[in-house]
Amino acid sequence: MRFTSEQRLDDGVLERRFTLGEIPGILWTPGSASAPVPLILMGHPGGLHRMYPRLVARARHCAAEGFAAATLELPWSGDRPRSAAAEETRADLHRALKAGEPVDDELVDRLVLPLVEKAVPEWRAALDALLPLPGIGGPVGYSGGVISIGIRLAVVEPRISAALLFAGSFVPRTLFEEARQVTIPLQVLLQWDDEGNDRQLALDLFDAFGAREKTLHANMGGHTGVPHFEGDAGNRFFARHLR
Amino acid sequence: MRFTSEQRLDDGVLERRFTLGEIPGILWTPGSASAPVPLILMGHPGGLHRMYPRLVARARHCAAEGFAAATLELPWSGDRPRSAAAEETRADLHRALKAGEPVDDELVDRLVLPLVEKAVPEWRAALDALLPLPGIGGPVGYSGGVISIGIRLAVVEPRISAALLFAGSFVPRTLFEEARQVTIPLQVLLQWDDEGNDRQLALDLFDAFGAREKTLHANMGGHTGVPHFEGDAGNRFFARHLR
Repeated sequence: MRFTSEQRLDDGVLERRFTLGEIPGILWTPGSASAPVPLILMGHPGGLHRMYPRLVARARHCAAEGFAAATLELPWSGDRPRSAAAEETRADLHRALKAGEPVDDELVDRLVLPLVEKAVPEWRAALDALLPLPGIGGPVGYSGGVISIGIRLAVVEPRISAALLFAGSFVPRTLFEEARQVTIPLQVLLQWDDEGNDRQLALDLFDAFGAREKTLHANMGGHTGVPHFEGDAGNRFFARHLR
Repeated sequence: MRFTSEQRLDDGVLERRFTLGEIPGILWTPGSASAPVPLILMGHPGGLHRMYPRLVARARHCAAEGFAAATLELPWSGDRPRSAAAEETRADLHRALKAGEPVDDELVDRLVLPLVEKAVPEWRAALDALLPLPGIGGPVGYSGGVISIGIRLAVVEPRISAALLFAGSFVPRTLFEEARQVTIPLQVLLQWDDEGNDRQLALDLFDAFGAREKTLHANMGGHTGVPHFEGDAGNRFFARHLR
């Protein structure tokens, strides 16, 4: 991992951009901390530049609670090399949505599974690089979407102790099976009136999770309208489980 | 309203028992408050004596956030006169549950509607008596079950500004219709694995509420296992809307 830039935000948070091999990422750490702080991996739908305003707001919120936050660019997104297969699949998705056709399991698999397969080892490699940094301690939380990446990480990565998952994207059937193996504490966010998301599928997924402590927070406001108070609720969830 | 006893709890909270006509009730106020505080009406399934340990815990939690809390005995419960019709309906319910029969709409109506009809005016009368007390100010929140009482109160009682409803009891069809008229901010608690409660009906009810701000919190732990952290979440909900 190589740091490429560093800036101090007005609230004292230190923002450092880095590359992990060819993958761009950002690390935010609280302005002042006397001991190493837990780390939250912040998931997102891809496109660091486009997502930056929302990511930095989430990171500041984490830092205010005394957490570090980090994110990585997703495969085939932002400044990373495109994949012809992924582009074709996205085009198929847009065609299906535009035509009002159902998005079938085969398309969901093609859309999500390669992303999960490629991204999850990258996020684990990011943990290898981030956790030894001075000021960063365990344990680790995962927060956000893509929910399928969060599910797989929760199953395969023992350093992740709690996850706040955003149920707002397509989930392949096989990830439903993996959800049963998730036993870490979960908080699942669902936008009740998210027109692009299948509410019943999200409820079925919440039901499938094998965690003994799992909480569903459903709110109004559409896909991007998660209420501000859920940021506080997320901090309290992680404070319970990462401290 | 007549106060019948008064005691100071170890955390400074003042507990005063009262009767409103023939109806027993309890009022808890924070140990120290410089200005009149908002009031939370705490709903429960009936039986003040049996429910007392849980009610006082909830009231202390409210008081810690600077809220007063009050509750009333329900019609035909605790020390209040029994109703032959209500007893018979409860017996019919237990018979149906024991036989594994479905609880049909007619039985739910018989079980809940008379309770709502009788309890709601009583809780409104309690507001008339409680709000002029020194140290109590508006606005008012309703917290808990019986959810049908909470729904009716939210529709007919303009002094109630926010409601935290526990979706854990039978809801007559007509209350579903009234739910559409509820426009105050809502937080709805659902115990996901509550065996005695119809989960789908609770989700349909959440969907029906007309409120622009409504949040569903679903947790594990069975009917009586609402996690402790929901007490904090409830306080924050009321702090947002009653301050």
